[in-house]
Amino acid sequence: MRNGRGRVTLPSQKDFLNETKELMERWGADAIRDSDGTKLDDDIKQLDAKIYTTYFVARGHNDFAEKHMEECQQLYLMSQFNTAHNEELKIDFMKGYFEEQLKPDYVHDPKVYWEVIDRTTGKVVDIDNWSVNKQDNSVTITNAIPWHEYTVSFLVYAIWDPTQMYNHITNDWGDTPHDIPFDVRQPNSNKYMKDYLSQWLKENPDTDVVRFTTFFYHFTLVFNNLGKEKFVDWFGYGASVSVAALDAFEKEKGYRLRPEDIVDQGYYNTSFRIPTKAFLDYMDFVQKFVAEEARKLVDIVHESGKEAMMFLGDNWIGTEPYGEYFKNIGLDAVVGSVGGGATLRMIADIPHVRYTEGRFLPYFFPDTFYEGNNPVIEANENWLTARRAILRNPVDRIGYGGYLSLAYKFPDFVSYIESVTDEFREIYDTIHGVEPYSGLKVAILNSWGKLRTWQTHMVAHALWYKQIYSYLGILESLSGADVDVVFISFDDVINNGVPDDVDVIINAGDAGTAFSGGHYWTNEKLVTTIRSWIYNGGGFIGVGEPTAYQHEGHYFQLATALGVDKELGFSLSTDKYFVTPVNEHFITKDSQSFDFGEGMKNIYALSEKTEILEYSDGEVHLASGSFGQGRTVYIAGLPYSEENTRLLMRSLYYAAQKEEAFYRWHSSNIYCEVHVYPAIGKAAIVNNSMEEQTTMIYNGQGKAKEVKLAPSEIRWEVFSDEGEFADRD
Amino acid sequence: MRNGRGRVTLPSQKDFLNETKELMERWGADAIRDSDGTKLDDDIKQLDAKIYTTYFVARGHNDFAEKHMEECQQLYLMSQFNTAHNEELKIDFMKGYFEEQLKPDYVHDPKVYWEVIDRTTGKVVDIDNWSVNKQDNSVTITNAIPWHEYTVSFLVYAIWDPTQMYNHITNDWGDTPHDIPFDVRQPNSNKYMKDYLSQWLKENPDTDVVRFTTFFYHFTLVFNNLGKEKFVDWFGYGASVSVAALDAFEKEKGYRLRPEDIVDQGYYNTSFRIPTKAFLDYMDFVQKFVAEEARKLVDIVHESGKEAMMFLGDNWIGTEPYGEYFKNIGLDAVVGSVGGGATLRMIADIPHVRYTEGRFLPYFFPDTFYEGNNPVIEANENWLTARRAILRNPVDRIGYGGYLSLAYKFPDFVSYIESVTDEFREIYDTIHGVEPYSGLKVAILNSWGKLRTWQTHMVAHALWYKQIYSYLGILESLSGADVDVVFISFDDVINNGVPDDVDVIINAGDAGTAFSGGHYWTNEKLVTTIRSWIYNGGGFIGVGEPTAYQHEGHYFQLATALGVDKELGFSLSTDKYFVTPVNEHFITKDSQSFDFGEGMKNIYALSEKTEILEYSDGEVHLASGSFGQGRTVYIAGLPYSEENTRLLMRSLYYAAQKEEAFYRWHSSNIYCEVHVYPAIGKAAIVNNSMEEQTTMIYNGQGKAKEVKLAPSEIRWEVFSDEGEFADRD
Repeated sequence: MRNGRGRVTLPSQKDFLNETKELMERWGADAIRDSDGTKLDDDIKQLDAKIYTTYFVARGHNDFAEKHMEECQQLYLMSQFNTAHNEELKIDFMKGYFEEQLKPDYVHDPKVYWEVIDRTTGKVVDIDNWSVNKQDNSVTITNAIPWHEYTVSFLVYAIWDPTQMYNHITNDWGDTPHDIPFDVRQPNSNKYMKDYLSQWLKENPDTDVVRFTTFFYHFTLVFNNLGKEKFVDWFGYGASVSVAALDAFEKEKGYRLRPEDIVDQGYYNTSFRIPTKAFLDYMDFVQKFVAEEARKLVDIVHESGKEAMMFLGDNWIGTEPYGEYFKNIGLDAVVGSVGGGATLRMIADIPHVRYTEGRFLPYFFPDTFYEGNNPVIEANENWLTARRAILRNPVDRIGYGGYLSLAYKFPDFVSYIESVTDEFREIYDTIHGVEPYSGLKVAILNSWGKLRTWQTHMVAHALWYKQIYSYLGILESLSGADVDVVFISFDDVINNGVPDDVDVIINAGDAGTAFSGGHYWTNEKLVTTIRSWIYNGGGFIGVGEPTAYQHEGHYFQLATALGVDKELGFSLSTDKYFVTPVNEHFITKDSQSFDFGEGMKNIYALSEKTEILEYSDGEVHLASGSFGQGRTVYIAGLPYSEENTRLLMRSLYYAAQKEEAFYRWHSSNIYCEVHVYPAIGKAAIVNNSMEEQTTMIYNGQGKAKEVKLAPSEIRWEVFSDEGEFADRD
Repeated sequence: MRNGRGRVTLPSQKDFLNETKELMERWGADAIRDSDGTKLDDDIKQLDAKIYTTYFVARGHNDFAEKHMEECQQLYLMSQFNTAHNEELKIDFMKGYFEEQLKPDYVHDPKVYWEVIDRTTGKVVDIDNWSVNKQDNSVTITNAIPWHEYTVSFLVYAIWDPTQMYNHITNDWGDTPHDIPFDVRQPNSNKYMKDYLSQWLKENPDTDVVRFTTFFYHFTLVFNNLGKEKFVDWFGYGASVSVAALDAFEKEKGYRLRPEDIVDQGYYNTSFRIPTKAFLDYMDFVQKFVAEEARKLVDIVHESGKEAMMFLGDNWIGTEPYGEYFKNIGLDAVVGSVGGGATLRMIADIPHVRYTEGRFLPYFFPDTFYEGNNPVIEANENWLTARRAILRNPVDRIGYGGYLSLAYKFPDFVSYIESVTDEFREIYDTIHGVEPYSGLKVAILNSWGKLRTWQTHMVAHALWYKQIYSYLGILESLSGADVDVVFISFDDVINNGVPDDVDVIINAGDAGTAFSGGHYWTNEKLVTTIRSWIYNGGGFIGVGEPTAYQHEGHYFQLATALGVDKELGFSLSTDKYFVTPVNEHFITKDSQSFDFGEGMKNIYALSEKTEILEYSDGEVHLASGSFGQGRTVYIAGLPYSEENTRLLMRSLYYAAQKEEAFYRWHSSNIYCEVHVYPAIGKAAIVNNSMEEQTTMIYNGQGKAKEVKLAPSEIRWEVFSDEGEFADRD
């Protein structure tokens, strides 16, 4: 069943013309890209396909950069903590940093741009009480207070692009020159980036799509003295900082940033930190600038008759696709890496572009494509998780990266991708532009709101961390579920209330993080708005430590509504009688057992009104409550799995008081789902597992039929206005 | 091997003369007591034994109390949290309370003594904005802010003594009158307590020891509307509160307490709360008063030629044996219930009395003494844990409680106690007044210090709670270990530094509790004092969340010294490389496996300097660090066991840098211990288990011999000045 051609991008490489042609044919590819470390031959560029060419704006031009080292990118760094043993304290502030990447900025006066902080008191040390030794990169504090801890916040030049540095070190590139990142906020760099692009466009007539990888500022990636990763924040604005930026910020916002506004006690404003006003202002300032400058490049690309595509990663800082200024960039497309359903939606939902593209896994690298390994398994898993999300909102294209020659050696893989590309096109052609059926609307509530759409609880892009997987499961589950999802911030609620069409709010995260909310939960407006909203019929789901902030007798500030709170020791003297789970409940109807991931300790039910759904080890891990006309659900943690997806869906429909709607379009088997498209009278019944599944399928009118689905199968059904399934399409 | 007679107290009862005589003989008892629900016959009182008689000061005199209901004891209570849905909010403030125990105080003007608090903002509601309805016990707030939560703090009269209430309800005493507790701060009650005692002493010529059970104010014990325990705090000052007390406090301390100073957001200042200045003042005020008044009763007892003994429990509030004023009471003795080693030391270490007595388990009640059960097991466990502590500092007497007739039916039990009483006397006669060998001195550091000696992390007396057992193990381990133990407070350190002779400080507890210290760890003096002390060679052991308070880049404020911190999400972007345990370490030399109890999540090592001793589930649970000349140890939790006792001992000796001393007097087998008494040249080798054990015993000079010990055996050895063991004594 070949559906034809298109919507697929293939990586290619030197001396691989015939195989490229063959795979183009089999996978129906209509675009060819280069990759890190691959270049396309001219004859490949002449194939009947769009040509994507990777383009670096602010790196890879050492001939320019070396002449303008004063325009290097900069970072604010914090030294280690140093304990004063007497009144003099010498701090080796570069200790632990990688000198091949980072060089102290002695061009600008440290007394103006650096900060020495007494971390015992939090006070800034007077500039008269410290001095810098440029020879050994040290700061010496005089009049230190013995046994206080001190740090130095200092400016450095970044002299090595982090992505190239990573590849260079990982692949042992020897004496390959280090790409020097330059700052387009600087006059020469700014001019150069435009001039060079114009020239490059002329020199690359075969390029159809300029694949910006990416624009100006890399996410924060700092290496340690051993040349290994020391700090990585995929959202980090660290590399956007410079003296020029600080000065421009002051001009634009009317006040000056302190180093501490960036350094943030060494936490560097990661997205887990509740953002300060100063940092939000700084992000806004950078986003505005990046959008303005990127627009200029995009305009140049357009003038040359080519398309501008942005890679969502690497030097993407400030582009924030869900931010205020993204639309101003005027991009044609965004391409990003798809790790699963949530990352697919992060790409597919991006507004203000003509198309989006997902780069699927596995990457054609030797870590997967080695003899004895079966790359089909990873491809199948990646496709199944992504497909759920595609069925909610498809990316417009899919593609792969790496060495095509590696993949070519695995014929089963080539066949499998042939079926995937066909399946993708069939899905896309069927549902593109068609609104999928949604049973309810859920809002994820945290400090970031819309800006971090599908991007909550992430550290490095799509990597597993012990502290996040129990929350990431929420996004992954939602990414392919028949619910609408929006992301709202505390400030949204404070300023505008809860959006009218939201059925359920989810607040999920560890106490004190931006995702749970910390001190926001003492904001009177926030608390009363949500309390009244629930009381009047809203649904609220808390995961982990929702609404947590110790204040006036509660740890969970919405404890009264949630029906549970966390025991911190203060209320041990109060007897906890409510420990008996209810016998049966809508939420747990499909649950044979529970996996709360990291879970949460010491949660207890407040009264007999709380329905305990799971109690073990002396703790509540799952409960539902009622508050006025509204309902609440507490979940200790929700790592991604089919079981937990079902648990979350039931929780949502229960909290929204739409239990009947839950069964409208429904698969009795948790490994299968029904995606419905009312406007075209079609439904996709999918088997999300790699085993055969049998399930009862409910047709929207309460009528059911049994269906047997092959491993990973997607089956399209048409249904009449009465909701009757017709024969298979 | 009969060692004779004495130091043992027997409970007796009516119609049990001959059996009492027989058991007196077999157990060597020299004192006889009554118990709750038992009275002694006259012929028993004529036996050759001291007679203890239970005496209630402020309850059990309803003929008086009923005439002076205005002198009933009082409490401040907090209502439930109530959400305002509009501007009027009616609060049923007695909801959830037991009306047979508690009655709102309408004698004193609620507008003066009550407080309505907006728990959303923490602000007190103006008294013009609420009114009380005495008919239905409600408060109605006008001008409430919709969706704010409100509570009422109100005064009640306590009209039923909690201990009698508990016994009454538990044993179904039907229409037995309820004991009304009266307040000796009131004029009539104060006069009555003295007059009645004088009269009672005359009427009870056979009583040798007046066993005060206890003085004036019961620990806080409040029942719910179902007649079950709602709130229990063995340290709670709740029942000491009254209008009279509040007025006297103002006079003495120069300021007035707010209801909130007592109610404390509904946490009622349990010992897990970091005490406020106001609450510390209030405790001081009550302790002073209680000591003064109790002294009067003790004087009356002494004038009659009898002894005054205090039961450590029930109405013990304000007597605080380790407090400022205890010595002023002038008691002859304290008796308390022994749940294990820590509670034994809590009694045995009490200063300013002539003797102490431990009431051992099991209590002679049908819950243990029923057909088919073997009470010897509980007795043996109780004895083994207590014996460890006795070998450090013996109580002067042991005793039992309950129905002797029940115990008499179990001949194996009678025999077992015969051996226990003999063993106790042998130990006592051998080591009483002899200082045991200590290898080092450890200070437990928390908010309470000396006042809560052997009383940290306790909720209800010696009960198991999920949130405390991982810390209580520290005290239990220490209670029988060859180390000196002192309890110091943060204020002690701030005002006086670390005592000179302390080798190791332990800070143990959950973040924010009085035991960990919360905001104290931002106190510059505290932090610098301890930092410098460690740096100059001190040892510091943190258990659970030591020194925890999020501030200036650390969660553990002594993270730099401890070498570990807890990941709250803020520093996820920082790579954690230090995950590999060391191969071998002094601390873990006897550890086959680990049990950290509740443990602690997300602890990570800060640098390669930290020696990780246990790493699992992506977390550090045991580590040691160095800081200057000092050493630190981190332990995730330490429930009591022989393994963990050994782990703690090794941690202490390691932190103190006295590893060699650890082996001086030493048992290779963790189930055995060596207690040494240099002044008399003797050592007790004990088998703390109920199985036979073989162990190498080191004799203080590095010489070892193998010893086989019978289950539970204690073996005395004499040793020469050269440390040679002689033959068995």
